[in-house]
Amino acid sequence: MKRLGCKIIQGKLEKELKEKTESFIMKGNRAPSLAVILVGSDPASETYVRNKHEACSRLGFLHFDYRFDEDVKEDDLLALIDELNGRADVDGILVQLPLPKHIDEKKITNSISVEKDVDGFSPFNVGRLCLGEECFIPCTPKGVVEILKYYDIPTAGKKVVVIGRSNIVGKPMAMLLMQKGFDATVTVCNTRTPSLKDYTLDADIIIVATGRPGTLGSSMCRNDAVIIDVGVNRIEDKSRERGYRLVGDVDYHSFEDTECQVTPVPGGVGLMTVMMLMENTFESANRRKK
Amino acid sequence: MKRLGCKIIQGKLEKELKEKTESFIMKGNRAPSLAVILVGSDPASETYVRNKHEACSRLGFLHFDYRFDEDVKEDDLLALIDELNGRADVDGILVQLPLPKHIDEKKITNSISVEKDVDGFSPFNVGRLCLGEECFIPCTPKGVVEILKYYDIPTAGKKVVVIGRSNIVGKPMAMLLMQKGFDATVTVCNTRTPSLKDYTLDADIIIVATGRPGTLGSSMCRNDAVIIDVGVNRIEDKSRERGYRLVGDVDYHSFEDTECQVTPVPGGVGLMTVMMLMENTFESANRRKK
Repeated sequence: MKRLGCKIIQGKLEKELKEKTESFIMKGNRAPSLAVILVGSDPASETYVRNKHEACSRLGFLHFDYRFDEDVKEDDLLALIDELNGRADVDGILVQLPLPKHIDEKKITNSISVEKDVDGFSPFNVGRLCLGEECFIPCTPKGVVEILKYYDIPTAGKKVVVIGRSNIVGKPMAMLLMQKGFDATVTVCNTRTPSLKDYTLDADIIIVATGRPGTLGSSMCRNDAVIIDVGVNRIEDKSRERGYRLVGDVDYHSFEDTECQVTPVPGGVGLMTVMMLMENTFESANRRKK
Repeated sequence: MKRLGCKIIQGKLEKELKEKTESFIMKGNRAPSLAVILVGSDPASETYVRNKHEACSRLGFLHFDYRFDEDVKEDDLLALIDELNGRADVDGILVQLPLPKHIDEKKITNSISVEKDVDGFSPFNVGRLCLGEECFIPCTPKGVVEILKYYDIPTAGKKVVVIGRSNIVGKPMAMLLMQKGFDATVTVCNTRTPSLKDYTLDADIIIVATGRPGTLGSSMCRNDAVIIDVGVNRIEDKSRERGYRLVGDVDYHSFEDTECQVTPVPGGVGLMTVMMLMENTFESANRRKK
């Protein structure tokens, strides 16, 4: 097995983006800036927000953090987003999901101005992606593309299988890789697919985003397949200080005696996502400058 | 072979929609209305526009036809669309494509208000389709779904292959059938797919939208496959008065000795498209009433 580690890619992209940002600022532009809204105190969400915050700091981006209690009113969030939409010093707006149940997640994310939707989740952005137009590519699919690029894995004419049809990974991933330029033949499998093996056994590249550990093992794949594991699952583990460990959707160890190339978890796709958010934020600043 | 003729479906849907429209008007609502813009005098476009016009008349819809010479200025089209966007008596706006080369087709279609984009081609609409939200489903994919429904052809858990990745058929078709409720496992093939047979030989349902006659023949399919032929190609035919005949993308006759179910051309998908446009226009009127 070849391990497709992403730490090295993250480092490379971060260095490049940092240099781009410095030169951007040297030219008299304001530093790119990201506003992050966090509701409640879910530990995973806290971690994600902290990671974004730290990435901004390392890159020299401005960041504005907004925190609300669990019982915040929807209208208060909408009012803040409305204000941020109008602010000239904000390039990207991100609402950390999930939101509490009494809040309409769709309504909130759709209220973010299209020009600042650096997560790329709004219908307009997704539509542009689907139509092959310039857009903010959702961060995880964008990160997967960077991994394929870094490891020289071609997609044109290849059999790509995406397992999972979520709005934030599976569907945009499929849309992206079927576009001209990528030119893959893409199949999207879902929970109703009777036999995943029918598709995976013959695939060149398999992208797994189901949120279920053990979705894919080596017996389901060709001996030279490329496996991209998007899953991040917490598994109880008493031997760890924090009481859990992270595993992906792929049975990583089953690939050890194969010729497959596999992204690890942790150390894989997850590392790319924050960096892609930073790239989208830079892009937004670059479009907005003058 | 079983011929999946669509004349009978068109008749049924037209009857239903006519009744719905009558009852809609009886309740004191204005008749649904469609504005159609045609530039130049391409004979195929003329036919399409006439078909839409006639469908409106049969259903009791209002229709506004706008015709421009080939050398119309982009700004004049934009001004008209802007006016139509604002008019309370217009539910749907359609610009017949293709437009002359000096006109930015994207700019024109994107200027149509999202609420009146009954063709469903705008990024916002496509994005909503992709995200599984309420939207105007593009007419051809919507028509294909009606054919599958009428002939009791299930999609859940089925292997669906879409050949062609156009923005108006292939991509929205794939997005639609992979949504919850349809639950198909969808593969999108394109011109870079090395061997179509790898996918078609095993497929339950094959939807062909390449614009190339002879894309699919029976030797590439299972003996019980369902074949939906979206293609409409003009083939020179001196024996016909008009000098051509219409054929699909599928080699229809090659299926004669199989158990496959195949839509004919003409008499197939094409018949559905106009009716779906009318359904979208009705839907728009229904949303707009109060």
